[in-house]
Parts: sequence; structure tokens; C-alpha cells
Amino acid sequence: MPTSITRESPSSSRQDILRASARLFREQGYDATSMNDISAALKLSKGGLYHHFRSKDEILFHIMNHAMDITEARVLTPIRDIQDPEERLRALIRLHIELVLRARDREITVILHENHPLPTGLRKRVNARKKGYIHFVEELIAEVQRSRKNSKVGPRAAAFALLGMINWIYQWYRPEGELQEQDLIRQYTEIFFAGAFA
Amino acid sequence: MPTSITRESPSSSRQDILRASARLFREQGYDATSMNDISAALKLSKGGLYHHFRSKDEILFHIMNHAMDITEARVLTPIRDIQDPEERLRALIRLHIELVLRARDREITVILHENHPLPTGLRKRVNARKKGYIHFVEELIAEVQRSRKNSKVGPRAAAFALLGMINWIYQWYRPEGELQEQDLIRQYTEIFFAGAFA
Repeated sequence: MPTSITRESPSSSRQDILRASARLFREQGYDATSMNDISAALKLSKGGLYHHFRSKDEILFHIMNHAMDITEARVLTPIRDIQDPEERLRALIRLHIELVLRARDREITVILHENHPLPTGLRKRVNARKKGYIHFVEELIAEVQRSRKNSKVGPRAAAFALLGMINWIYQWYRPEGELQEQDLIRQYTEIFFAGAFA
Repeated sequence: MPTSITRESPSSSRQDILRASARLFREQGYDATSMNDISAALKLSKGGLYHHFRSKDEILFHIMNHAMDITEARVLTPIRDIQDPEERLRALIRLHIELVLRARDREITVILHENHPLPTGLRKRVNARKKGYIHFVEELIAEVQRSRKNSKVGPRAAAFALLGMINWIYQWYRPEGELQEQDLIRQYTEIFFAGAFA
């Protein structure tokens, strides 16, 4: 824990280490990236790096944890006070798509979806947070279904369908492509609302 | 090219090498897996392995290529003779979900979606095949839309939504889970048809 003045540059904050590591993992692969590569990319001493994180596993875990923090802050917190469940769900779809398209956070959030070997204990903690988000979406869908006529599909399958549609965007989206943000939000909202509440 | 009797066991066929490699890449990461690991897992001499593939890049490329072969053989070929576009699309959804859930092929097909660094030329060849599949789905959706009343969503967004729903399944599906194959196929088909053709 940093309790005194250190000689580290301001760029050595935990968040900067997580961002630089996520970029390196993405560019050259998780296994091929060493703690040395990370400290070199940040112009940080090895001691400075190990001061924050004891291992690459720990860095990977904290990237995933940070991705969940970002998701909660950008999607769940802003919709908390929307009373109408349908409006809350529309806002969730919009904000989640905006998060996925946000270049600055993409390297962090994408890490959640790739298969990286993480020690069991850390893996379970990340999975518990992911499941929390899925259950939130499922509950919200169920609430909208109750407020409309009955649906032919269950809220769980609908939640997985919606999260698949949105989380898959990073696989095909190109900023210079034909489908742009607002258009994508509109069409995905149309598809999902017609599909899950028909 | 093998032109004479070799001492290699029958397990050294190209497909077996691809399957074993895909499993190792999944279990221990692509970068952490060496050509030695692959030959050891197959009880194959290094010469035997290099006889088939000159490098790990080449193996990764052929796994992805094989994944596209499997997709075409299991999804596109069986629907080729279905005349009605709506029935053809329903069959595509069912067969693609069945492919994703098929344990034997999962390690092969999943490789398509993970971020692995592949040399540009090989990457382009894989991407061209992926795009071919996406365009096939988009065209089929457009055909169904023409045969019904107009839709509020374009066929491209609808194609990406459908492929996201289906390709995402490997992220959450558990064979012992609540949502089982036939139920999932029915609900995803309901969601997509109501969503894309409302």
C-alpha cells in the first residue's frame, strides 16, 4: 500500500497498469506477455509493478473485475432511478451497446469474454459478478413481461439472447462500417422488444 | 505428402492433430502451447508433426479453416434444397444451434471466436470465409423479409443479432443446465422470427 512519496511517475497508477496490460494481452496474447513486458510498456521498474500486483494472474483478475465495475457504473447505476420497467430495459440496451462501442473501454471489457486460464478462486469471483449482471437483466425482462401480455419465451432465454446480441458486437463492429451506433441501438431494441415480448 | 508406408500410428492424421491442438490451445492457451506439447499429446515424433504442419500458425489456421468446413457441412449443405426461404432459415437456426452445442466440435468451432494473433495473409483467408457465412445469413433474412410484410429492421443488423445470439451460447451453456437444446432452439427461433419480421 503506498503510504509515502514514491518516485513512480503518475502513469504507474493501478488503472494505467490494467489498461496497458489489457492492450498487451490483446495484441500479443496473454501467455506471451510477461511482467517484464508490462513494466517496460509503462516505463515502470519491476519493483514498481510488483508493488501493485504480485502476478500476471492477479492483473488479469483485476482487469476483469474492473470491466465489471465499468459495466455497473455505465449501465446499472444510470438506470437505477427509472421507474417504468420497459423504459429501464430500453435504457439498459442503449447504455450497454454504447459501452461495447466505447473504444476507450473496449480492451478492458473484451477480456471478460476471452478464454483465459485463471486460478479457480479468482475465476469464481469473476463468474459470480457476471452472473449477477445476467440475473439483473433476466429479472428486468421478467418484469416487463409481467407488465405486458404474456410472452412465448422465458426471461432466461431472452436474457441470454439479448446479451449475446450485444456482447457479440465487438466481433464484427468497425467504426468506419455501415451500421453506426444510433442505428444499431434502434434496430437491436426493435428486434429484442418485438422478439421477447411478442 | 505421405506416399509410402510410415511408422506413424493412425492417430497422426491431420484431423487428429487439429483436434488435439485445439484442445491444448483451449486448456493452456495458444501461446503457452508448443509444437513439442502437441507432438507429445499425440505420441507423435516431431518429424511426424512437422510432416503435416510447418508451424503453430499453420495449425491454428487449419483449425479455423476446418471449423468453417464443419459449419458449411452441418448447416449450409443440409438446407441447400429447402425451397421455402422461411423454412430454410428455421432449419439454419436449428442446425447452427445444434452445431454450437455439439461437444465433439466445440473446441474446433470456438477457436473462430477467440482473439488469436494470426499472420495477416492467413487471417484474411479465415475472415473471408466468416464473411461468406454472414452474407449468406443476411441474404436469407432479406429473402424472408421480402416474402412477408416489410420489417422495421435491416437484414444486416438482423443477421448480426442472430449470429450473436447463437455464437454466444458457448459462453453460458452448461449441459446440466436448465435450458436444454430443443427448448433453446424453439425460444431462439421465436425471438428471432418475432424480432426480425415483426
